[in-house]
Amino acid sequence: MEAEIKMNINTLESTSTHPALLGSLSPSVAPEKVINFSPGPTSLPKAVEKQIAASFNNSGFTSLALSHRAPEFLKILNHTLATIRKVMEIPDNYELLFTHGGGHGQFAALPLNLCHHHSDTATYVVNGTWSARGRDEAQKYCNVETIDGKDKRTGNYTNFPVLSEADIDPQSKYVYLCSNETVNGIELHRLPKLPESRRHIPLVVDASSDFTTKPIDWQGDGVGVLFACASKNIGHPGLTLVVIRKDLLGKDKASPLCPGVFNYTINSEAGNLWNTPATFNIEVVGFLMDWLERQGGVVANERRCIAKSQVLYNVIDNSNGFYGTPVSNKVLRSRMNLPFNIKGGDQQLTDKFLIKCWERGMVGLRTLTPFGVGDYLRASLYNGVTEEQATSLADFMRCFANENG
Amino acid sequence: MEAEIKMNINTLESTSTHPALLGSLSPSVAPEKVINFSPGPTSLPKAVEKQIAASFNNSGFTSLALSHRAPEFLKILNHTLATIRKVMEIPDNYELLFTHGGGHGQFAALPLNLCHHHSDTATYVVNGTWSARGRDEAQKYCNVETIDGKDKRTGNYTNFPVLSEADIDPQSKYVYLCSNETVNGIELHRLPKLPESRRHIPLVVDASSDFTTKPIDWQGDGVGVLFACASKNIGHPGLTLVVIRKDLLGKDKASPLCPGVFNYTINSEAGNLWNTPATFNIEVVGFLMDWLERQGGVVANERRCIAKSQVLYNVIDNSNGFYGTPVSNKVLRSRMNLPFNIKGGDQQLTDKFLIKCWERGMVGLRTLTPFGVGDYLRASLYNGVTEEQATSLADFMRCFANENG
Repeated sequence: MEAEIKMNINTLESTSTHPALLGSLSPSVAPEKVINFSPGPTSLPKAVEKQIAASFNNSGFTSLALSHRAPEFLKILNHTLATIRKVMEIPDNYELLFTHGGGHGQFAALPLNLCHHHSDTATYVVNGTWSARGRDEAQKYCNVETIDGKDKRTGNYTNFPVLSEADIDPQSKYVYLCSNETVNGIELHRLPKLPESRRHIPLVVDASSDFTTKPIDWQGDGVGVLFACASKNIGHPGLTLVVIRKDLLGKDKASPLCPGVFNYTINSEAGNLWNTPATFNIEVVGFLMDWLERQGGVVANERRCIAKSQVLYNVIDNSNGFYGTPVSNKVLRSRMNLPFNIKGGDQQLTDKFLIKCWERGMVGLRTLTPFGVGDYLRASLYNGVTEEQATSLADFMRCFANENG
Repeated sequence: MEAEIKMNINTLESTSTHPALLGSLSPSVAPEKVINFSPGPTSLPKAVEKQIAASFNNSGFTSLALSHRAPEFLKILNHTLATIRKVMEIPDNYELLFTHGGGHGQFAALPLNLCHHHSDTATYVVNGTWSARGRDEAQKYCNVETIDGKDKRTGNYTNFPVLSEADIDPQSKYVYLCSNETVNGIELHRLPKLPESRRHIPLVVDASSDFTTKPIDWQGDGVGVLFACASKNIGHPGLTLVVIRKDLLGKDKASPLCPGVFNYTINSEAGNLWNTPATFNIEVVGFLMDWLERQGGVVANERRCIAKSQVLYNVIDNSNGFYGTPVSNKVLRSRMNLPFNIKGGDQQLTDKFLIKCWERGMVGLRTLTPFGVGDYLRASLYNGVTEEQATSLADFMRCFANENG
């Protein structure tokens, strides 16, 4: 493998207009050879993509054409919900809702559902880009108290703060956290326990980028609400899953200002049909959940996620500083999104790395987010990336370091 | 044709558990023979469905996997926006936004964007189910004044009210209307003019079920905002198009309570990428717009819509009362959704009609909405239904009337 990817970087003309540097996902290799390391939206497992393609073949009537009130769609909806519940072992006292608006929609929906009054308090644990965005949006709708995990020395998020009794108002309507920060590369491999005197407060979890990649102890961890946009691990953009403990639902619980499409209670009462749900997106999530079940469920998936990320962290840690990653606390390193730089962020080498990757079909490593990650590249290892594909990148990284170290 | 669809209804066992009566879209005919008269989500034109299928074939990298920041997606986005603008002749002083949350999301988004203060007034013209839903949601966010079109005698919506100066507060932030009421079968074939003294007020149009089926005089009609969910005429569920006059955008115009995902200004400033848009849904809208352009644009499409609906209204009007439709004012009859009953709503005949239709592949005529339409069936004739398909239903209806009249 490594012999195959030998290269002579001296022959390479680095240019900022090279497609690889503009984030192109279309290298000149055969499409089936593309490995998509994008932070999302991104590829689904090949088996799922084939199932989607098959659903459009040999048929004059596609699933896109299904009315959300037709029995054919209700079967898809119920199957998808049941499989999520089964695979993720979600207890009966939780409701599953499919909502609109992505993760950002939920940033508003959460306080609007859980804080009836504008003066209600919610506690936000901020340890990266997404929890900060969630907190900022919530400030429109409630009194927000922040537990900030920023490293005061570096100004970066490289840790998860201690959750101490003193920092959590006992009247807080919920404690919010993001279990995987895609930009910062920080992941909670298990949800934290709140201090004993605060365990009456429901935990709200943004699991948009790590749902299905590790088990969740729903009751034990005190999860009140967990949400996941579909476009990382479970589907494609336009759908967000919300799992909510049923005691948090109820007439008059939400703010009177909560838009109907975001109101958990009315959507629950309407069986996910208060307005037209994203029917096809729901079908795709069902395909993904079937695949996950065939692959051995969430425990087996966690093993794969550990293996995929470990093969890359090993290369980084054994590169004698050629590669760097901002998260030194290994317990917090994300299995989903691995930020890394090359020789401390050397621009020319980084460009060469990206172009050589792209020529081999490895795309999505330079991401053009509005949030900025300095000179860091990112390898994202969602459900669509196989162990073999992660190993291909690791092999290439080792080879590149050997040649340019 | 009529000979072909002769039947003996006496051999038919009517039963409420027949799939046709449960809204099944899967008759036993070949899938390519299914004609989908569903009020939406529903079928797209065959050419568009084929293009979608093709996009999944012979490729290991599907459009579902595209990052919204990849140049490949930006090309799709820009092409789609440009084609909508071209086909619908939208002037440069209007912005096009792709939003989440369906039509119901816009019911909240509109007052939240156009009324900065809760005390601001908006005028709602209510002449059917959807304008009533829009009005109800708006009442959370502003002071709503209603111009009600209900027929005081029958309690039904069968007319569009006169828009008189006295009924429109000159300070009103906007005048809202729904240009096609799917449940009630009322359509404005051209947008109404506001009284001259009220023409400074922007018109807000819910065109969810008739966008692309007739030209719009954007400036002349004083359109401030027009929105259309995708799942009727232009795509599939999970995406809503908003066309907004640029002078209605601007920092601090929206209510401070407007969720970011609904905020027109920040989504405009972010070039439709403030959060992850429904990428694949946008691609499908692009396919539809390309198709529309190939079919001769919106003027030619209007001719087809007139022809498709006329062939059915002719059968109804010439059936000597066998078929009835609630909208006697022909000028207001919807070309999109034709509610009709059989012998005044005869249950047994209606069931027989539905079953016979279903056996011939004609589905979606009984719709199980939460709104109720009495004993009325509905034939919906969106862009996915061809003139030939509308004629098939007309032929069948004539035949059924002859045999059972």
